[in-house]
Amino acid sequence: MTDAVRASRLAPEIAARLKRDGRGLIAAIAQQYDTGEVLMLGWMDDEALHRTLTTGRCTYWSRSRQEYWVKGDTSGHQQWVKSVALDCDGDAVLVKVDQVGAACHTGDRTCFDADVLGAAPGDRPPAAPREQAPREQPARWKSEPAITGSDFQRAAKGED
Amino acid sequence: MTDAVRASRLAPEIAARLKRDGRGLIAAIAQQYDTGEVLMLGWMDDEALHRTLTTGRCTYWSRSRQEYWVKGDTSGHQQWVKSVALDCDGDAVLVKVDQVGAACHTGDRTCFDADVLGAAPGDRPPAAPREQAPREQPARWKSEPAITGSDFQRAAKGED
Repeated sequence: MTDAVRASRLAPEIAARLKRDGRGLIAAIAQQYDTGEVLMLGWMDDEALHRTLTTGRCTYWSRSRQEYWVKGDTSGHQQWVKSVALDCDGDAVLVKVDQVGAACHTGDRTCFDADVLGAAPGDRPPAAPREQAPREQPARWKSEPAITGSDFQRAAKGED
Repeated sequence: MTDAVRASRLAPEIAARLKRDGRGLIAAIAQQYDTGEVLMLGWMDDEALHRTLTTGRCTYWSRSRQEYWVKGDTSGHQQWVKSVALDCDGDAVLVKVDQVGAACHTGDRTCFDADVLGAAPGDRPPAAPREQAPREQPARWKSEPAITGSDFQRAAKGED
């Protein structure tokens, strides 16, 4: 685990569960609480998370400016916090917010509106009875080289 | 911009838009396409994104095992791709999927189900006429030290 770079008032029992990257940051997904829209991805250090948890407003750490960034302070497009959840391995939070106006600096509602990539969609196999082990379902995935690494290692890392 | 570490078949015009971290990765948010649930956050290098775009199945790069990880190959809990969108600054994709079973290795439906942090919720100010500039709305944010840095710098970086 990487130690946080900056001093923080974050509760120690939360700080102990964070798995920060090399810059002391975790990813923060902002989602509109009622519609489910994924609005943007930002970054938080311990103190940004503390401020998000305690002020009612989403606060990020700006990697480019190396300072705290209270979403909407310039644009007026605040993110009012509804709930915050840490993920199972401690490297991301999901922040449900009430977004005022556009989340994206381009004026789009979300940061994912403008650049939809061409993707070949996949279809799940027909529903199988719950008693049937999922891995026994027919493989309908289009052909791709087999990946390496044992299932045992994968399960041990929590990445199925 | 960091160059990708591994060889990839990703289309060059997409690769040129990615802003990778020091490990050559971008964040990948998986969202259930119909319910809007945010399922998990993973990581993709260029080739993982290529495979996600072309095979119908979500493929991540495992940072711990340093190999490709086709979600559900072990657990049967596949993610069938519906759409993929790159964000405005190229460091994250939103992958809408049809998730079979639990997205989380713990058996939870999502990786954000188990650790909801205590947060003081925020309430947006009363609706103002659209003609009123958002930044002129009354400040109802609870007191917090002012952040440093000019609005000009902030706007120039696309972080309002």
